Amino acid sequence: MRDRHDTGWQGDGIYYGADYNPEQWPEQTWAEDVELMRRAGVNLVSVGIFSWALLEPTPGTYDFGWLDRALDTLHAGGISVDLATATASPPPWLAHAHPETLPRRADGTVLWPGGRQAYCPSSPVFREHSLALVEAVATRYADHPAVVMWHVSNELGCHNVHCYCDVSAAAFRGWLRERYGDLAALNEAWGTLFWSQRYGDWAEINPPRAAPTFANPTQQLDFLRFSSDEQRAQLRAERDLLKRIVAQPVTTNFMAGMSKHMDYHSWAADVDLVATDHYLTAADPQSHVGLALAADHTRGVAGGAPWLLMEHSTSAVNWQPRNVAKAPGQLRRNSLAHVARGADGVLFFQWRASRAGAEKYHSALVPHAGADTKVFREVCGLGADLKALAEVRGSRVDADVAILFDYEAWWGVELDSHPSVDVTYTDRLAALHGALWRAGVTADVVHPSTDLSRYRLVLVPTLYLVRDADAEALRRWVAAGGTALVTYFSGIVDEHDHVRLGGYPGAFRELLGIRTEEFFPLREGERVTLDDGSAADVWTEWLHPAGAQVVAAYADGPLPGVPALTRNAVGAGAAWYAATRLDDAATDRLVARLLAEAGVRPAADAPPGVEVVRRRGDGRSWLFVVNHTDRPARIAATGTELLAGARCAGELEVAPGEVAVVREEDSDARPATAERHP
Amino acid sequence: MRDRHDTGWQGDGIYYGADYNPEQWPEQTWAEDVELMRRAGVNLVSVGIFSWALLEPTPGTYDFGWLDRALDTLHAGGISVDLATATASPPPWLAHAHPETLPRRADGTVLWPGGRQAYCPSSPVFREHSLALVEAVATRYADHPAVVMWHVSNELGCHNVHCYCDVSAAAFRGWLRERYGDLAALNEAWGTLFWSQRYGDWAEINPPRAAPTFANPTQQLDFLRFSSDEQRAQLRAERDLLKRIVAQPVTTNFMAGMSKHMDYHSWAADVDLVATDHYLTAADPQSHVGLALAADHTRGVAGGAPWLLMEHSTSAVNWQPRNVAKAPGQLRRNSLAHVARGADGVLFFQWRASRAGAEKYHSALVPHAGADTKVFREVCGLGADLKALAEVRGSRVDADVAILFDYEAWWGVELDSHPSVDVTYTDRLAALHGALWRAGVTADVVHPSTDLSRYRLVLVPTLYLVRDADAEALRRWVAAGGTALVTYFSGIVDEHDHVRLGGYPGAFRELLGIRTEEFFPLREGERVTLDDGSAADVWTEWLHPAGAQVVAAYADGPLPGVPALTRNAVGAGAAWYAATRLDDAATDRLVARLLAEAGVRPAADAPPGVEVVRRRGDGRSWLFVVNHTDRPARIAATGTELLAGARCAGELEVAPGEVAVVREEDSDARPATAERHP
Amino acid sequence: MRDRHDTGWQGDGIYYGADYNPEQWPEQTWAEDVELMRRAGVNLVSVGIFSWALLEPTPGTYDFGWLDRALDTLHAGGISVDLATATASPPPWLAHAHPETLPRRADGTVLWPGGRQAYCPSSPVFREHSLALVEAVATRYADHPAVVMWHVSNELGCHNVHCYCDVSAAAFRGWLRERYGDLAALNEAWGTLFWSQRYGDWAEINPPRAAPTFANPTQQLDFLRFSSDEQRAQLRAERDLLKRIVAQPVTTNFMAGMSKHMDYHSWAADVDLVATDHYLTAADPQSHVGLALAADHTRGVAGGAPWLLMEHSTSAVNWQPRNVAKAPGQLRRNSLAHVARGADGVLFFQWRASRAGAEKYHSALVPHAGADTKVFREVCGLGADLKALAEVRGSRVDADVAILFDYEAWWGVELDSHPSVDVTYTDRLAALHGALWRAGVTADVVHPSTDLSRYRLVLVPTLYLVRDADAEALRRWVAAGGTALVTYFSGIVDEHDHVRLGGYPGAFRELLGIRTEEFFPLREGERVTLDDGSAADVWTEWLHPAGAQVVAAYADGPLPGVPALTRNAVGAGAAWYAATRLDDAATDRLVARLLAEAGVRPAADAPPGVEVVRRRGDGRSWLFVVNHTDRPARIAATGTELLAGARCAGELEVAPGEVAVVREEDSDARPATAERHP
Repeated sequence: MRDRHDTGWQGDGIYYGADYNPEQWPEQTWAEDVELMRRAGVNLVSVGIFSWALLEPTPGTYDFGWLDRALDTLHAGGISVDLATATASPPPWLAHAHPETLPRRADGTVLWPGGRQAYCPSSPVFREHSLALVEAVATRYADHPAVVMWHVSNELGCHNVHCYCDVSAAAFRGWLRERYGDLAALNEAWGTLFWSQRYGDWAEINPPRAAPTFANPTQQLDFLRFSSDEQRAQLRAERDLLKRIVAQPVTTNFMAGMSKHMDYHSWAADVDLVATDHYLTAADPQSHVGLALAADHTRGVAGGAPWLLMEHSTSAVNWQPRNVAKAPGQLRRNSLAHVARGADGVLFFQWRASRAGAEKYHSALVPHAGADTKVFREVCGLGADLKALAEVRGSRVDADVAILFDYEAWWGVELDSHPSVDVTYTDRLAALHGALWRAGVTADVVHPSTDLSRYRLVLVPTLYLVRDADAEALRRWVAAGGTALVTYFSGIVDEHDHVRLGGYPGAFRELLGIRTEEFFPLREGERVTLDDGSAADVWTEWLHPAGAQVVAAYADGPLPGVPALTRNAVGAGAAWYAATRLDDAATDRLVARLLAEAGVRPAADAPPGVEVVRRRGDGRSWLFVVNHTDRPARIAATGTELLAGARCAGELEVAPGEVAVVREEDSDARPATAERHP
Repeated sequence: MRDRHDTGWQGDGIYYGADYNPEQWPEQTWAEDVELMRRAGVNLVSVGIFSWALLEPTPGTYDFGWLDRALDTLHAGGISVDLATATASPPPWLAHAHPETLPRRADGTVLWPGGRQAYCPSSPVFREHSLALVEAVATRYADHPAVVMWHVSNELGCHNVHCYCDVSAAAFRGWLRERYGDLAALNEAWGTLFWSQRYGDWAEINPPRAAPTFANPTQQLDFLRFSSDEQRAQLRAERDLLKRIVAQPVTTNFMAGMSKHMDYHSWAADVDLVATDHYLTAADPQSHVGLALAADHTRGVAGGAPWLLMEHSTSAVNWQPRNVAKAPGQLRRNSLAHVARGADGVLFFQWRASRAGAEKYHSALVPHAGADTKVFREVCGLGADLKALAEVRGSRVDADVAILFDYEAWWGVELDSHPSVDVTYTDRLAALHGALWRAGVTADVVHPSTDLSRYRLVLVPTLYLVRDADAEALRRWVAAGGTALVTYFSGIVDEHDHVRLGGYPGAFRELLGIRTEEFFPLREGERVTLDDGSAADVWTEWLHPAGAQVVAAYADGPLPGVPALTRNAVGAGAAWYAATRLDDAATDRLVARLLAEAGVRPAADAPPGVEVVRRRGDGRSWLFVVNHTDRPARIAATGTELLAGARCAGELEVAPGEVAVVREEDSDARPATAERHP
Repeated sequence: MRDRHDTGWQGDGIYYGADYNPEQWPEQTWAEDVELMRRAGVNLVSVGIFSWALLEPTPGTYDFGWLDRALDTLHAGGISVDLATATASPPPWLAHAHPETLPRRADGTVLWPGGRQAYCPSSPVFREHSLALVEAVATRYADHPAVVMWHVSNELGCHNVHCYCDVSAAAFRGWLRERYGDLAALNEAWGTLFWSQRYGDWAEINPPRAAPTFANPTQQLDFLRFSSDEQRAQLRAERDLLKRIVAQPVTTNFMAGMSKHMDYHSWAADVDLVATDHYLTAADPQSHVGLALAADHTRGVAGGAPWLLMEHSTSAVNWQPRNVAKAPGQLRRNSLAHVARGADGVLFFQWRASRAGAEKYHSALVPHAGADTKVFREVCGLGADLKALAEVRGSRVDADVAILFDYEAWWGVELDSHPSVDVTYTDRLAALHGALWRAGVTADVVHPSTDLSRYRLVLVPTLYLVRDADAEALRRWVAAGGTALVTYFSGIVDEHDHVRLGGYPGAFRELLGIRTEEFFPLREGERVTLDDGSAADVWTEWLHPAGAQVVAAYADGPLPGVPALTRNAVGAGAAWYAATRLDDAATDRLVARLLAEAGVRPAADAPPGVEVVRRRGDGRSWLFVVNHTDRPARIAATGTELLAGARCAGELEVAPGEVAVVREEDSDARPATAERHP
C-alpha cells in the first residue's frame, strides 16, 4: 500500500461536495445538478453508494449505462468523483436467494431487508457477491477521468455490527481460535471456572446470545472485538481487491466520535486517507463542542494528518427524536470548525433532498424547497470560503495536550454488572475536552499506545481497561517531565477484563501514588462537596495516599475526610488523580490548574464561546476563530484574514456568529508544539 | 345490499342493552337476567360473541342447544337480540390443528391462544373455518323472532391487525400486485432506488419485519393499508355470506376514535348501520371531551346518519393502568352525550360482571355486588331516560363545522424518521375539537373527500398526507366562500408518502398563500411566544408569505419575526395557517376568531363546562344540555324538557351533573346547517 | 426425613463463613485462605456450588482430585464444609449435546449459556445428568469429615423459573392433569367460556406464551404455581437422592423476601433447615428495615425455628444499577440484625472477590485490595462477635404480631388487567412491617394457614387471593379475642382467581362488617384526605358499613363521606379494615392504635432508628439493640452485654452505629409470647 497521506489527495485546495445519487432523479435533472454544483463551488461528489440493486439488477448481470452517463456528465462539468464500491447495502435478491445472509439479534430476531445493511457481516455469501461487484465496478471505472477516490461500502457496521446468527457463531469461534490458540487459554482469559462455564470443545462456544442473566464479560468483550474486526475484514477485502485494479486512493467513511463499536484506531491503517461522518446531537444546545471533540478524535485516528469530512448535514437530520435545523450561519461555523481541526475536505449527505424513503427529511445542499433558500445560499457562501482557504490544505493542527482514548476501554467500562451504571465512557472524556474547549486549548484524542513525547499534558479519562505496556509508557512519560491526569475507574482491568489485584487502580497505583480499597458509588442524584468547595456526584472511593499529596478531600458524603483529588510527583513530572465526578465548574478549575502546571497556553486569548484553533505547516500558521456568541469578539492577531481578504494588524474583530481565518505574520512567535516539549 | 340507514333499525325508540353472555352463567340465572333487563328497560342484547368454542366444540360439530334456549328465553322476555356470528376468537383447537394460523409480530414472535384473536387475519384456514361457522349460525337463526340484527365478529383488528407471518407476507404481495400492477410502479412508489432496495421479483417483498434500521416508509404505509383491508375482508366475507341467508341488518362494532389501524371510512359502506365501541381515557379528567370527539368521528364515519353505540362501560374498565370508576351521574351524562351526538342506541359491555377471566374487573350493568348498587340504579334510570327520548330516533345532529380526518394521514404522519416525534396525528385534532367543544360548537369529523358544501368552517389538523383531488376540493370550497384553517405539517406528501417539492406545505401552498423553506422543530420542552402573546411549542418553520397576510409572528425562539399565523384571502373565502403548536388558550382565541369570521354560532349560549348539542329531524329539533360542572346552568330554551317531562319557557335550568333534552318549540328560529351555507 | 430442626445444625455456636470457590484460584492460595479464615473466625464454607463443569469435564467423566485436596485442606484447618451438589449451573457441553435443555422466554427467545442456570427446569435430560452428578459427589464425600451439611443446587429458580418451551409445555399439561383430573374442571377453573377459550383436549393447552392480549389469568396463576413446583421438584429429587447416601442435614439457599416466584412456604418442608440469601436494596437509604422484613419472613418460612443466612454481602453487590458500599459498621449491624431475628448462622457470598467473571465487583470477605482493608477488619470483628453470641444459638424470636403472607396472593394480585397497577403485593406489607419496626415491635411473617393462637395482633396486607379455610380461621381467631387489620383488595378471589360475588371483599365481608359495591382507584399522583387528617392515595372504594363502626371517612376525593377506615367488633375481638393507601404517618398512627388495642408492647422502649428484638430460649432471653442512628441510645436493660462482655444494670448505652446484645437477668419480667395470648 502506498503512503496514505501522500496519495490521499488529488487536485488543489479543500474538497467540497456531497453524496450524489443521480439515479434517484430523472436524467433531465442532472444538468441542473451540475450547474448548481458549479455555482456552489462543489468539486467532489460521492457517487453510487447505494446503487448495488440498480447496478446488478439480477445476480451476475450488471447495468452500468446510467453510471457511465452520470460520471461523464460530472466530468464534463469539472466535478470530481469519489466512486463507491456500491456494496453498502445488498439488493433484496441476495436475502431472498440466501436467507442465511440475514443478520440476527442476540435474542434470535432475524433482521430483514427494508432498511439497509441487512446482511450478516461474517457471511461468506455476502462477501463473495460484494467482491464480485467491487471487481466489476473497479474494472469499469479504474481509468475514468472523473474518479479521484474510491469509497468502500458506507458507514460499515452502522446497523449490522453485532450479528448473533450461526454463521457469525462459527466465525467467532474461528476468531477465538486465532486469538487464543488453545481452549485452556480461552478458559483462563474468560474466567470460565466462575459459574461452571468451562468449555471442553470449541464447538460449545457461541456469541453472547440472550442468556438467563449476565453473560460472561470477557466473552462479551471478545465478541465486541470480533465484531469490529469482521467489519474491518470487509473493508480490507474490498481495499485489497481495489488496490489490484485501481490507482486512486481508497477510503471509507468512519463514524468517528459517534459510534462505539468500530475500533477506528485499528482501521486507520487500512485506508489511504481517513474520512469520517459527523452529525450534531440536536438535543444539545452546545453541540458545536461535541463537534470539536469528534474532529479532534478523527484527527487522532488519522495520526495527526489531514482528514476528510465525508458527511455532515447542511441543517437538520431525520433520525433523531427532534431534528433541530441549523440556525443561519451555523452551517458555516460547523464546516469551518472541522477545517480548523484538520479537515481538508467538507462533504455532506446529500446533494438533493430525497422525495421518498427513510431519509427524505434529512437536509441537503438543495432542499425540497429548491435553490432559493437559506440553505443553498449558505452552501454557495461556504464554497467561496473553502476556495479562499485553499492554502491551508495539508497543514496540521497545533496541539499540546493529548487525551487518551481506547475503544476497548469504552467496551470494557460499559459492560454490565459494574459498580455503577452512571459511569460511562464518554462522560469524563467530554467533560475534560469541554473544559479544554472553554479554555481555548486544542487536544489530540489519541490511542494510549501513541508516542506522547510531543505533548505537555495528557488527560486519561475512564481508561478502565489498559494494557501493561501502555500504562508503563504513560508512567515513563510523566517521569520524563509530563503532567497527567487520570480519572476514576481507570486502570482497573487488563485486556481480559481481569481485575488488577492489590488495590485500585491497579495499573496506575504506582504512577498516582495512591491505593483505593473500595469503591463507594453514590445513589442516583446524590451529590458530595469537596473541602475546596467543588461539587461532584456519581462516584467516590476509599482512597489512601501512598506517596501522593492530597489536593482536596470530601467534606461530606459517605467518606468525609477521604482524599478526592491527589497529585503525585513522579520524576520530573506529576500525575494527578480525580477520584470523583467533578461538575463542570470544578473541572474547569482543575483543568486550568493542569494547563498552568504544564505550561500550556490557548491558541489565542478569546472571550467565552469563541473557538480558537491554529493550523500550521510549511513555516506558516493560520488562526481560526469561530464566534459562537451573539456578541462581537476581539482577538489579538496580525496577518491576512482570508475569508474577507482583509489585513488585520494587532486585533481582529469577529462579528457575532461569524468565522475568521488569519494567515499569521508572526507565526514563529508561537512555536509549534513539537519544538516546545520539555 | 339494502340501504343501510333504512334497514338498520328495528322497533321503536332508542336501543338499550349490552353484550350478554348467558353461557358463562348457570342457566338458572337466565330468568333473573331477563327480569332485571326488563326492570332496567333493556331492549337489545348482543349474544354469542365469544361462543365459538362452545358452539363448535370440535371441528365441524355444532352444539346449538344452549343458544336455542337462551334466545327463546330472551324472546319470551321481550328482549331483542343482536346475534353474533361468533367468529371473534377461534377455539384452541384451531391453532392446535393449524399452527400456521397463529399471528406473528414484526420480530417473528408467535402470538398464542390464551387471550383472544390469536389468528392471522390473512389465514385461509381461519377464513374457511369462520365462514363455516357463520353459515351454520345464520342458517339456524335466520328466522328466530328475537334476532333483529347480526353482529359480525367483534372489534375486528383490535389485537391482531398487524401480522408479519409468511401467510401474511404472501397475502401482502397479492395485495401489492393488485394495487400496483407491475413491479416498476411499486419500485417507483416505494422509492426503492434509495438504499439499494429495488425489487426484481415480487417474491422478494415482505411485510416491514424487524430490520437493522428504519424500514422503507411507503412499505410501512402500504402494509398499514393492507392490514386494514385484510380485516375488512373478513367483515365483507361474513357480511356477504350473511346476506345470502338472513334478512336482518348486519353490522359490526368499530372502535372509532380509539384505534389508529382500521380505516373505518372505507369500512362504513360494508355495514347496514355503523356501530362503534367507546371507552373513556381514565387518566384524563376531561374524558367527556374525548368522548364527544369519538362520537363526532363516528357520526362522520356514518355519513351523518344515526349510529349505534355498541359498547361502552357503566363505570371502570379493566385494561387501563388505573381504571377510574364513574362518579355518580357520569354514566347518564356519558350515555346521553352519545345520543346527543347521533347515537340511536346505547349498549354496554357487558350485562353481568364476569367472575373469572381477563375482564372480570370490567364494570357491567349488574356488578359483582349485585343489583343493590349505584350502577344498577343508574342503569335503570338511564333506561327510563332513553324511553323518554324515543322521538329523537332518526334525527340528525346539527353541525356547521367540519374537521377533516384521514386514517392514511394518521398512518403517514406517525411513521418514523420524521422531523419531530412530538408531531402526532391526534394532537391538533383534539386541540381544535376541544376548542370547539368549549365554544359550544359541534363539528362533524369527516374524510377529506366529503362534500363540504353544507359547512361554514373547515379545520384541517395535521393532514400530512393528502391526495391532489382532496386538496383541490378544499381549495374550491374556500374560493366559494368557505373559511378554513390548516395546521402545520399538513399537505406535505402525496399518497405514496413522496414529498411535494417546491416548498412546504406542497398541497396547500397555493391555498394558504405561503411557502415554507425549512422546518424548525423545537427541542423537548422548548417554548416560543408569538407577537400577539400566544404561547406555543413543538414546531416552528421558516415561512414566507406568498400572498397571505401575517396575523402573528414569532417574538422569540429560533425564528424571531417569521410569520407563525397567516390568513390568505381566496376568492370569496379565506384560508388560515397555524405554523406552530399553539397552547389551549391561544387555540381557543384562534378558533373564536374563525367562528366569528365564518358566522358559526354555538348550539346555545352556555357556561363553561356545559355541553350543548342540537339534533334535528322531520321539522323538529332537540337541544341536549349536559352539565359537567358542579354549578347549576341556565340556558335559553323554550319547549318540553323530555327527561323530566316539564315545559320550559324561555329558560332552562340544569342542575349540576344533570342532563336535559328540550324539544324546541322555535326550532325554525335556528335554521339547519344545510340551509345556511353561503 | 429426620426432624429438620434437630438435625440441621452441627458443632457449637453460630455458623460463620462464606461461599468458597478454591478452584477459581491457584492452589498455592489455599493455605493463605485457610489462615485468613481462621483469623476471621470462619467455621463453615460452602464449596463446589458452580463446579459442575470442572467436576465433570466431559459427560460421565468425573475429576474429584482438586476437590479432595480442597476439602482436606479445609478440614486440616478446622473449617467445616457445606458441600454443594454442584448442579447449580450445567456445563456448556449439556446444551451443546442437548439444545432442547435450553429455556425459552414467553416470546420464544432461547436463553443460552454464558451466564448461569441456562436449563429448562422441566428438562428430563437436565434432571438425569444433574442427579448422576449428585450421586457421584454424594457417594465420594458422604463420609468426609469436613462435610457437615449439603447444599442442593443454588438459588433455585433465580434466573430460569419460567420456561415456556415445548418440554415445559408438556410438563405443564401433566401438572394440570394432576391438579384438575379432568378437562371440565380445568375449563371451569380457568373460566374458559370467556373469550372462546374452552379446551377440548389437554394437548391444546400451553404455558401463557406471548399472546395478542391479556392471557387467561388462571392460566397465568397456574403456570406460576407449576413453575414454583418444578423448581421444588429439582430440590426434592436431589434431596431424596442425598438422603439415600448421606447422613448430614440437607438444605438449599432460598431467596426469601427477595423473590416473588418460589413459594418457599411449600418448600420449607423439603429441607432439614431453612437457609436463605439476602441482599440490601442499594437505592434505599432505609434498607435495614427491608432486611428486617426479609429476616422475619424467613423465620416465618422456617416455622419460627432458627435459620441460616447462607449469603449476604460484606459490602456492595454487582447486579444493582448503583451498588452502594456498606458504611463502616454497617456490615456488623446487618449481620447481627439477622441473628437478632433468628439467624443461627451468617455466611456471605463470597470468600475472595473474583478477578474475572460477572460478579467480580461483588464484595467479599477478602477484597481485591486484600486483607488490609476496612472490610476484612470488620469481618474479623464480626467473627469475634459471633463467637461471643454462641449461647444464643437455638433460641427463638419473640413476636406477638403476625403478618399474613402468601405467595399465591402475591402472584394473583399482580396479574394484569386489574383495577390499578399501583396495587402491588409488597407495598402494604412493607408499610405495615415498617410501622411495626418503627414501633420496636417484631412480627412473624407467616402463611395464612398458620396457627395464630400465639399472636395478639394479626395484619393482613393485600391478601387478594385467600382460601375459604384460611379466611374462616382468621374469623375464628378474631372471634376468640384477636385483633386483626385487613387492607384493601384483600379477600377478593378464591384460589382459582374467581371473584367472590355479592360485594367486596368477599372472603372478609362478614369478618369486617362491611360491603363494598365498587372500587374507585385514584389517578396517578392523586391524593385524598380522611376526616381524621390522614393522607392517602392509590385506592378508595364505595364501602357500606354492615355492622362495622366507621373510624374515619374521606374528606375529599371521589367519595367524600364514604368510610375509609372501619372497626368491627367480632365476638371477643375486633377486625379493622383500611380501605385506602394511608401514608407512612397515618399508618404509624393506625398501627399504634392496633398495638394498644391488642396490648402489644415493644421489645424495649427505644429512640427512633434504634432496632430492638428479643430472642428467648431455655428460660433465658437476649435483647438485641442495633443503633442505626448517629446518636448514642439509652435503653433500659439489666444483664450482661455479650459483645463487650460488660454488665449493665438498669440502663444500656449503645454508641452511634453500634450493636449490643444483653443476656437479660429479668427475662421472666417480659413473658414469652405464647404465654401471653388471651
